[in-house]
Amino acid sequence: MATRQREISVAEFFTKNRHLLGFDNPKKALLTTVKEAVDNALDACEEGGILPEVFVEITPEGQDRFKVVIEDNGPGIVKSQIPRIFGKLLYGSKFHRLKQSRGQQGIGISAAAMYGQLTTGTSCRIISRTGPKRPAHYFEIHIDTKRNAPEVVKDEVVEWNREHGTRVEIHLEGIFQRGRRSIEEYLEQVLIANPHVTLHYKAPDGQEMYRKRATEILPIEAAEIKPHPHGIELGLLMQMLKATRARNLKGFLTTEFARVGPTIAETICANAKLPPTARPSRIARQEADALYRAVRKTKIPRPPTNCLSPIGEELMLAGLKRVAGKAEFSTAVSRNPAVYRGNPFLVEAALAWGVEGRDADSPADLVRFANRVPLQYQQAGCAITKAVVGLNWRAYGLTHPRTALPQGPLVIAVHIASAWVPFTSESKEAIASYPEILKEIRLALQECGRRLGIHIRKKARIADAEKKRSYIQTYIPQVALALQQILSLSEASTKKATRNLTTILEKSRKF
Amino acid sequence: MATRQREISVAEFFTKNRHLLGFDNPKKALLTTVKEAVDNALDACEEGGILPEVFVEITPEGQDRFKVVIEDNGPGIVKSQIPRIFGKLLYGSKFHRLKQSRGQQGIGISAAAMYGQLTTGTSCRIISRTGPKRPAHYFEIHIDTKRNAPEVVKDEVVEWNREHGTRVEIHLEGIFQRGRRSIEEYLEQVLIANPHVTLHYKAPDGQEMYRKRATEILPIEAAEIKPHPHGIELGLLMQMLKATRARNLKGFLTTEFARVGPTIAETICANAKLPPTARPSRIARQEADALYRAVRKTKIPRPPTNCLSPIGEELMLAGLKRVAGKAEFSTAVSRNPAVYRGNPFLVEAALAWGVEGRDADSPADLVRFANRVPLQYQQAGCAITKAVVGLNWRAYGLTHPRTALPQGPLVIAVHIASAWVPFTSESKEAIASYPEILKEIRLALQECGRRLGIHIRKKARIADAEKKRSYIQTYIPQVALALQQILSLSEASTKKATRNLTTILEKSRKF
Repeated sequence: MATRQREISVAEFFTKNRHLLGFDNPKKALLTTVKEAVDNALDACEEGGILPEVFVEITPEGQDRFKVVIEDNGPGIVKSQIPRIFGKLLYGSKFHRLKQSRGQQGIGISAAAMYGQLTTGTSCRIISRTGPKRPAHYFEIHIDTKRNAPEVVKDEVVEWNREHGTRVEIHLEGIFQRGRRSIEEYLEQVLIANPHVTLHYKAPDGQEMYRKRATEILPIEAAEIKPHPHGIELGLLMQMLKATRARNLKGFLTTEFARVGPTIAETICANAKLPPTARPSRIARQEADALYRAVRKTKIPRPPTNCLSPIGEELMLAGLKRVAGKAEFSTAVSRNPAVYRGNPFLVEAALAWGVEGRDADSPADLVRFANRVPLQYQQAGCAITKAVVGLNWRAYGLTHPRTALPQGPLVIAVHIASAWVPFTSESKEAIASYPEILKEIRLALQECGRRLGIHIRKKARIADAEKKRSYIQTYIPQVALALQQILSLSEASTKKATRNLTTILEKSRKF
Repeated sequence: MATRQREISVAEFFTKNRHLLGFDNPKKALLTTVKEAVDNALDACEEGGILPEVFVEITPEGQDRFKVVIEDNGPGIVKSQIPRIFGKLLYGSKFHRLKQSRGQQGIGISAAAMYGQLTTGTSCRIISRTGPKRPAHYFEIHIDTKRNAPEVVKDEVVEWNREHGTRVEIHLEGIFQRGRRSIEEYLEQVLIANPHVTLHYKAPDGQEMYRKRATEILPIEAAEIKPHPHGIELGLLMQMLKATRARNLKGFLTTEFARVGPTIAETICANAKLPPTARPSRIARQEADALYRAVRKTKIPRPPTNCLSPIGEELMLAGLKRVAGKAEFSTAVSRNPAVYRGNPFLVEAALAWGVEGRDADSPADLVRFANRVPLQYQQAGCAITKAVVGLNWRAYGLTHPRTALPQGPLVIAVHIASAWVPFTSESKEAIASYPEILKEIRLALQECGRRLGIHIRKKARIADAEKKRSYIQTYIPQVALALQQILSLSEASTKKATRNLTTILEKSRKF
């Protein structure tokens, strides 16, 4: 038995478990490949402070095989990094920092390359250039799954018409379909959450799509932050104590964590009964445990929230209009940042009611976003869905079957922005149901719902009033006639009576 | 930016994403830890051909911390392997082979150790002994998450009263609760699918549970098989061609794959227009592609199924009785093996109807197993649930609301055995919905349902007949009297008429 024990490379693991990465079936594999590449392109452009222009081209290559090309005008990738970024799983710049970005695991694009290699045996091809004065590098990269390491098949300098940017080419087995959960749907939703993006798309059937950016303003760039003390676990704290360059405990606390100034650092030390001058590397488990509990006890301001870049109510509304089309009423709410496990996050919600072409007894449409990325699969397993279903929409005058989405001509959009979004799987299709997150989504939806409720009730009242007026108009003349006969009034006084009755009754109306 | 790019260790990845491994919250973390350790214990015992006797002890250590100890009478672990098995993620003997076992990823137990270390800073402690003449080794192992490598804190020979076996001790933050999705529930369900196990359990509240094995017979040990050609992807095939020791293509095909004899190998080569004598290492991508397509085209017998170890209808029924208690009707079906992506698998289903103490309009209870391991979480996302919900239970006389479980005093148990179970996440809580798997579950349930339907209809008919009989008994005498009066018959002939009428009508009854 002993001899059989051996290491499993991450690449081997995810090859066998590729449904965990969104490569369950050929249709989804094609979508996931486009998705990962586009997400990376947008991240790169924004980090480079460049308004993104992205080209997506899918070309059929017979027998369920496709060539997928994604090209961006981003800052490009330095030569030395290209092989590992595309040829090694769990490699990247986004995992080890606290900052809102689309990618966060360092798996996506290399996984797509690996899937392509697995299904067509073709290596991933990359062109990247970091500036007009720099050469454009062309790479062909094969992934050695046994070692989870890149093998450079080709490495040349080539001519490229682009001053800076990156071009990825992956050949893979896939199935192309339009409609629900299609690449079109994904791209359209990307534009909703990213109105600053210009997009060119060429589908395998030759159809082309071009969308110019709706705004010239880049989203505020999210800043990188340090971990918040309240999100740290004992084990991690002990690791940081070992790793820190700080010479004493006070210095360690102030330099390694967010929101910890000298005073708070001293309070923590006092609560832990440890001298602020203690050598971090010398702190034993028991002391670390005391420190850990002290941190929990100490009141520390919430983490900074400049690591978040919300879409904003205005753009949420604009985006929603793009999906829903004409609507009778729409509203959006952008919540203040909150914290789960020490990670700042923020929820935005928008809804459109009385959407044209939607009937009253169909369930609402739900559009989900995480860090500006549309989530198309696993709706049932997502915290957003859980919150929508859990809310009492009847209170706002809607039909709402238990354990289901509310009904009506309704479209709901929810966006979660966080320095670390807790997804339920590596394929990043659904958000894990942390209580703090559920609560924030609920609050955002409640506010939208309340406003919708007011609108719906007001409509009902107006309808009422209308009814009443019509009554008045119908019956007053009759009443007048009756009076005329009873009191044998003159035409004139009858008219007068009618006028008076009308005004009195009009006044007596609530509305 | 370049400088920021770096490798992410699997351990770091899963520390941050520990909800993927079943450590979402303190309650689940405690359960998952017990689960992973017990699964390993059972696998070890069965591989060693030993009837498993497992000890589970959970001791509170204040402030939501617990000490979890799992001890087995298995074959033990050779000294050199202990550190990596418990101190390195993605390491083990089960991933690289095709054989039914509970563990298959090489993540579980080291992840539990890592979670313990993360939340309490305490290393994992192991005692293991491989035989009476061998020493018992005691290890304290710390996981270096940055390198995903074990650090041996302590390594001693100790006295141990056990001749062979393994003892794991993990200290972790957790919450202990009884009831649904509890450790008790898990252990009870383990016994249902593993009647050959003897179990001792001591809960943190001091309560003890002891269950002697219900059978002295070990399950048939599952054999290890080679991959089936129809399950191989092009990329993998190319990898195997490079790696093989076989000198020629024919040899490669016959030695590396299941169900490929000389004749089939030659047919494949012919279909691929490649000489059987070709050097595997020399085969280029295009040729490999041809070979790949040839394999697809060639008719090859289904994979051997001795890699599967079903529970069997009899034990499924016995197990079901343990959960359901007294039931009016119960039945079980064990399907023949089938194949998905080249992996043999097999579905077993059992149901109990008219279960005492369950009311008619509550949804059915569903108990799910994969390779004899109970699945307690993510029921909604599981292929088993999908199949149960998708079936038309009305056809069998049951109430069945759309998109929900059928209703009634009903308990359903489904077991999937496979050399590779495709789970929807590393926490192994739900099975991915591969069409072939869904189909097999459906077929098993249909057979159970059909039998249940017969029972339910028969019951209805009996009730009917009863009604009819009572009618006959009530009215015949009246009829007879009437006749007597009309035809003024004698007492005797009246009695005779009654007798005859009765027999005629009795005959005329269907039942």
